[in-house]
Amino acid sequence: MTIVFPMALAESRDLVLPALRHAVSQLDPTTRAQAAYHLGWSDADGRPADGGGGKSLRPALALLSAQATGEPAEVGVPGAVAVELVHNFSLLHDDLMDGDVTRRHRPTVWSLWGAPSAILVGDALMVLAQQVLLDVPGERGRAAAALLANATRRLIRGQVDDVRFEGKPDVSLAQCRDMAAGKTGALMGASTALGAVLAGAPERTVRALQGFGEEVGMAFQLIDDVLGIWGDPEATGKPVLSDLRSRKNSLPVSYVLSRRDHYALELTAWLADRDCADEARLWVIAALVEAAGGRDWAEQEARRRLDRSERLLRAADVTPAVVDELVALGRFIVSRES
Amino acid sequence: MTIVFPMALAESRDLVLPALRHAVSQLDPTTRAQAAYHLGWSDADGRPADGGGGKSLRPALALLSAQATGEPAEVGVPGAVAVELVHNFSLLHDDLMDGDVTRRHRPTVWSLWGAPSAILVGDALMVLAQQVLLDVPGERGRAAAALLANATRRLIRGQVDDVRFEGKPDVSLAQCRDMAAGKTGALMGASTALGAVLAGAPERTVRALQGFGEEVGMAFQLIDDVLGIWGDPEATGKPVLSDLRSRKNSLPVSYVLSRRDHYALELTAWLADRDCADEARLWVIAALVEAAGGRDWAEQEARRRLDRSERLLRAADVTPAVVDELVALGRFIVSRES
Repeated sequence: MTIVFPMALAESRDLVLPALRHAVSQLDPTTRAQAAYHLGWSDADGRPADGGGGKSLRPALALLSAQATGEPAEVGVPGAVAVELVHNFSLLHDDLMDGDVTRRHRPTVWSLWGAPSAILVGDALMVLAQQVLLDVPGERGRAAAALLANATRRLIRGQVDDVRFEGKPDVSLAQCRDMAAGKTGALMGASTALGAVLAGAPERTVRALQGFGEEVGMAFQLIDDVLGIWGDPEATGKPVLSDLRSRKNSLPVSYVLSRRDHYALELTAWLADRDCADEARLWVIAALVEAAGGRDWAEQEARRRLDRSERLLRAADVTPAVVDELVALGRFIVSRES
Repeated sequence: MTIVFPMALAESRDLVLPALRHAVSQLDPTTRAQAAYHLGWSDADGRPADGGGGKSLRPALALLSAQATGEPAEVGVPGAVAVELVHNFSLLHDDLMDGDVTRRHRPTVWSLWGAPSAILVGDALMVLAQQVLLDVPGERGRAAAALLANATRRLIRGQVDDVRFEGKPDVSLAQCRDMAAGKTGALMGASTALGAVLAGAPERTVRALQGFGEEVGMAFQLIDDVLGIWGDPEATGKPVLSDLRSRKNSLPVSYVLSRRDHYALELTAWLADRDCADEARLWVIAALVEAAGGRDWAEQEARRRLDRSERLLRAADVTPAVVDELVALGRFIVSRES
C-alpha cells in the first residue's frame, strides 16, 4: 500500500486558516495572544512565528466531508474551524492536567503563563467553536452545533476516564477502548460528519461519514499509543517512553494486562509500585510490553480499524472521488511517525 | 422600599430542579457524582444531601423572562437549566483558579478531588448547557444557544480580566466595571433574555429584558464586592475580609484608587507590598476603603443600576404583572446579605 501525501491537507490549510484566524481575532487581547502562541502563529512575546502548530488533520476531514456530499469545500469551513478549536481546547486543558511542560517542542501555555491561562484560553476556544457553528443560519447551524457538543461531551468523558484509569491495573481492555473512542474517535468522527451536516446531507450519509471518522480516530489513537512508548522523541516532541513514565493506561499496556499471563503479572506489579521511576526500569517495561505482543496487537488493530473505516465509507452514498481522498487521508493519518 | 421574598424563587425551583437533575443525570458516573456534590445534592461520599446549593436566582429570572412575553414559565425551563449549568461551570473553574478551598461552607470540588476534576466537571457542565438549548428544535434553539455562547464568552473574558488585574493598582474604574459586566452582568442578562428567546419574542423585547438583567447583575456584583470586604463570614461562607486578603481589584477598591488622593496613595502602596499579609493590616485597609467612600459609592451605584434596570423594563413591551415580579426579584437579589 503506497502512502500518498494527501493534497487535501495543504488545500485545507489555505481555506481554513484565514477563517480560523478570523475566529481567534474575536477573542480579548490576552486570550487571543495566548491562543495564537498555542496555535504556533506567534512566539511567547507575541512576535509572528511560523510553525509549531498541528497538522490540521481534522479541518481537512471536515472539508472533505462537505465535498463527499457533492458540495464545495467552502461549505465545510465553519465545521473545520470548530473542530480545530475544540481540539485545541482539549490540548490546553490536557497539558495542564497531565503536567506536560512542552508540546510540539515548545513550552505549553500553562507552563508559560500559569494554570488560569490554560483553563481560560481552553474555555474560550470551546465556546468559540460553538459560536462559529451557531453563526450558520437555520437548522444546519443548530444541527452542526448539537453534533459538535455531543462529540465534545464524549471527548471530555474520555479524558475523565483517562485521569481515572491512570496507574490502575484493573481497567479492562474494553474500558480502555471506550476511553480512546471518546478521547480521539468522537472528535475525528465529528470532523468527518460536520461538513455533511452543513451541506444538509441526509442523516444516513452523516452517520456513515461519522462512523468512518470514528474508526480512523481509533486507528490514530492506537498508533499514538505506540508512539507514546516507542516513538522517537525528536519526531514526537514528547519525552522518551513518555506514556510509561506517566503510567498511562494506554492501549498496548492494556492489551498486555488483559492477557492475564506472567507478562501481565509483571506489568501489574510495576504499575502498583508508585515509587519506581528510574529510566532503566522503563526500558525494561517497554521491552516487556513489546515481547508480550502489545505493540504488534496495537499496530494490527489500527490496520483493522482502518480497513473497517474504508468499508463503511464505500458502502455510503457519497461522491466516489472524495471517498478515495478520505481513505488516503485516513491512511496518511495512521502512517504518521510523530 | 419593602423587600418581599419573591415567590418566583420557590416556584422556579419546583419547575427547574427536575429538569436540571435530568440534564446532570446524562453525565458519566464520575462527573455526575462530582457535579451533584457541587450542586449540593449529595455529600462527598455520594449520599443524598439537601442544601448547600445556590439560590437559583438565574433560573427564576429565565422563567420570568418567558412569562414576560405572555408564555407559560415552562417555555423558559431549558434556558433556566442552561444558565444554572453555565453559572456552575464558572464557579468550578473560578474556585480552582482562585485557590478557594470552601464554597457555601463546604470543601470545593478541586480541594476534594483535585484540579483535573474541577476542570473536567466544569467543561462538561458548559457543554451540557449548550446541549440543553440545542435540544430545542428549530431557530429558537439555535438563537438561544447563540445568545448563551455569547454571554459565556463575555463571562470568560471577565474572568481573564479578573486574573489579569489582581494586585494591579493602575487598573481604571472603567476597566473594573467592564470586568464586572462580563463576570456577572453577561450571564444575568442571558438569564433574563433566554426565556423570551425560547418564546420566540421579537428582538427588541429580548434586548430590553437582557438589558434589565445586565443592570441587575451589575448591582448584584457591586453588593457582592461590598460583602467580599465587609460581609459576615458566617453568612457569606467566605473568609473574613476575603477580597482584600486576595488583593482582588474589586469595585469599592477600584473606586478609591480612581480618586487619586491620599487614600488612593495609601491603598496603592499596600497593593504593591506583596509580602504583607497580616490580618490587622487588612482591617486597617478595610477601614481606609470605607473612610474614602468606597462602600457608600458601591451601595449607591448598586441602587442606581437597579433603578435603571427598572426603567428599561417598564419601557419594554412585556406583561405588566411579570414586570413587577422581575423588579421585585431584582431588588431581592441586590438586598441579599450573603
